[in-house]
Amino acid sequence: MPLKIAMAAPLSTPVPPERYGGTERVVSVLTEELVRRGHDVTLFASGDSRTAARLVPVCEKALWKVADEGAERLLRVETLAMLSDIYRRAGDFDVIHAHTEEEFALAFARLTHTPTVLTLHDRLDLKPFLWSCERLQAAALVSVSMAQRLPVRHLDLPWFASVHNGIRVEKYPFFPEPGEYLAFVGRISPDKRPDLAVQVARETGLPLKVGAAVHSVDLEYWRDEINPLFRANDVEFLGEINDEEKAVLFGGALATLFPSDWPEPFGIVMPESMATGTPVIALDRGAAREVVEPGVSGFICQGVEEMIQAVGVVGQLDRALCRKQALRFSAERLADSYENVYHAAVVEARSSAAA
Amino acid sequence: MPLKIAMAAPLSTPVPPERYGGTERVVSVLTEELVRRGHDVTLFASGDSRTAARLVPVCEKALWKVADEGAERLLRVETLAMLSDIYRRAGDFDVIHAHTEEEFALAFARLTHTPTVLTLHDRLDLKPFLWSCERLQAAALVSVSMAQRLPVRHLDLPWFASVHNGIRVEKYPFFPEPGEYLAFVGRISPDKRPDLAVQVARETGLPLKVGAAVHSVDLEYWRDEINPLFRANDVEFLGEINDEEKAVLFGGALATLFPSDWPEPFGIVMPESMATGTPVIALDRGAAREVVEPGVSGFICQGVEEMIQAVGVVGQLDRALCRKQALRFSAERLADSYENVYHAAVVEARSSAAA
Repeated sequence: MPLKIAMAAPLSTPVPPERYGGTERVVSVLTEELVRRGHDVTLFASGDSRTAARLVPVCEKALWKVADEGAERLLRVETLAMLSDIYRRAGDFDVIHAHTEEEFALAFARLTHTPTVLTLHDRLDLKPFLWSCERLQAAALVSVSMAQRLPVRHLDLPWFASVHNGIRVEKYPFFPEPGEYLAFVGRISPDKRPDLAVQVARETGLPLKVGAAVHSVDLEYWRDEINPLFRANDVEFLGEINDEEKAVLFGGALATLFPSDWPEPFGIVMPESMATGTPVIALDRGAAREVVEPGVSGFICQGVEEMIQAVGVVGQLDRALCRKQALRFSAERLADSYENVYHAAVVEARSSAAA
Repeated sequence: MPLKIAMAAPLSTPVPPERYGGTERVVSVLTEELVRRGHDVTLFASGDSRTAARLVPVCEKALWKVADEGAERLLRVETLAMLSDIYRRAGDFDVIHAHTEEEFALAFARLTHTPTVLTLHDRLDLKPFLWSCERLQAAALVSVSMAQRLPVRHLDLPWFASVHNGIRVEKYPFFPEPGEYLAFVGRISPDKRPDLAVQVARETGLPLKVGAAVHSVDLEYWRDEINPLFRANDVEFLGEINDEEKAVLFGGALATLFPSDWPEPFGIVMPESMATGTPVIALDRGAAREVVEPGVSGFICQGVEEMIQAVGVVGQLDRALCRKQALRFSAERLADSYENVYHAAVVEARSSAAA
C-alpha cells in the first residue's frame, strides 16, 4: 500500500549532495527508490535539491553555501521553519521521516498522532543525544548500525530498526581486475586518519590515491600535517571528487583503505568501494565489522600492522563476490527496511491513538 | 476574568535573576503581578527560579551555570523541550506568553489554536529576526519600545502592543536629597560606553560609582580598556551588585549616567534610578526618549558635551516628581498592558478559529 511520506532532510547540503555529504546521499537514494515504488513522497530540503519526489524547497539553496557569521542561527531558523511547516500539516502524511539533528524533530514529534521516524546519522556517545533522550523520547528511532548504539545500550530507547545506509549499486561500474594502487576516500580529518593510509602505502611500496574533502575546521590539520605528508610520499591528491570520479578511483584500485579511527556510525565509502569490486581494508572501529565480510569483501584489522599484511593478500579476493556483497547495501534493501519501519510506526501510532 | 497563562522564560538565567538579567527580571515582575491579580500562571523556567506561580522546572538550574563546551546546544535542547511540553498541552492554557529567542516560539505557535504572545527583548535590526519574520509570522508580537521597531517599520508585522518593561517601584526606597556622585549601572561592554561615563565624571569633577557585570565576551575590553581607565580616574567599581545594593547606589547619586550608545530596546536602569528619585542623563539612543521626560526625570543628550552640561543643572530637578515618573513603569501598568494584549490575542484566535 502506498504511503504518504514527508522526508525532512538536513538543510546544509542539497539532496543529493554535489560532492561530499553522506547523509544527504542516503536520503536521496531512499527517496528516489520510494518514489519508484509508488509511494507519495514529499521531500523537504534545500531548493537546489534534485528529486522525482514532490520537492518543498525550504530555503533557496543549501545553507553551507551561505557563508555568514549567522550561519548557525540561520540553520536553526530554517530547520525550525521546515518542521513547523511539516507538523502543521502532519495530517497530510502517514509518516514523517526526519534526518535532522535529533532535538528538532523530537520536539515536534510529540505534538501529533502522525508517527515520526528519526534516523540518527551521527555518533550517539556525545552529550547532546543523551540530553535529547532524557527530555524528548517519542519518535521511532533508527540507527544506521548496531555499533552506533553501543554507547547508549544501557538506555531503554524506542529503537525500531537498525538500517544500514544504502547506495545505487548499479551506478558503480564493476572493475573485474585488481589495480596497482591503494585508494583513500572521504574527508581529511584526524578522525579519518589519512596518515595511516600513507603509512600503509609506504610500507607496502604501493602508490596511494586520495579523493577527499578538506572542511574548514580541518584546514590547519591539512596544512600542517597532511599536505606535507602527502608531498613527502608522492601521494596523488585529487581533492573533493564527484560520484563518477569516485567510482573510477575505487574501481581502479587494488584495495580501498578505511583506517577511520573513531566510532563512525556507518561509513558509506565501504559499500561504494565494494560495488566496484574493490575490497576494503578497514580498522576494526565503528560499523566496519557490520559492512565488510573478512576474507570476502576485505579485511578487518586491529592496527596498521595488520592493514599492511592485508594488502599482501587482498589481491587474491574474488572481486565479483566483493561486488555481490555490496548488494547488502542496495537502494532496494534500504527501501525494504524503511517500508517495514514505516508500517510498524503507523501500526504503533494507531494502537496508541486507540488506547 | 482570570486567564490560564503559560509563561515561557529564557533558560540561561533564573527568574528572577540573582544579579544581572533584564529580561528575566521583567518576566518575574509580570508573573508575580499576574498571580496577585488572580490569574492562573504556569511559569516554565529554570528550576532555581522563585515564583508564586506554578513553577515547571524545565532544567534543574539556570543554564549559564552549566559551563560546558556544549552549552549552546544544551540551551537549544532544553528550549525545544520546554516549548514541546507547553504546546503539547496548549489546550490547558488560554494564552502562551513566550520570552525566548523568536524562532523557537514562532515555530510552535502555528501548530495550535491557543494564541501565542511573543515579547521581543532583543534588537530587531539584525538578520535573525528578519529570517524568522520571513519564515514564521504567527504570534501576537509585543515590542518593549517603539524605538525597537524602527529598523523593521517597513515590514507588515502582527504588532499587538508596545509594552515598556516594568519594575516593582515600591521595592526601591525613595531618596529625597540629591547625592554628590554619578552612578553607572549595567554591563561593562563597548555598547554601554562606560568610558563616556568616566569622561563626564572627570569633566564635572564628580566621583563616579559603577555597579556592573563583566560578561565573558567583554573580558578583554574590561582588562585592556576599562579597568585601566577606572583606575586612572579613581572610579569606585563595585562589580555585579544585587537589587538592594543597586537601589542604594542609584538613590545616593546626584544623577545616573546612561551613555548607552547602541539601539538598546529598552534600558531598565532608567526607571530603576528614577524610582529612587535620582534623575537620568541619557544619550539620545534606543528607547531613552520614551523613558526619560527631559527636564522632569532627567535629560536626553545628543553627545557627551550635553551630558556634561546636564550634570550642572540636574540637581535642580524635583526628585519626588522623578520618582512619580517611575510609576509609568510599574508592575501594575505592565500587567494592565499585558492583560489587554492577552485578551486581544484570545479574541483574535477565537475569530480566526471561527472563520
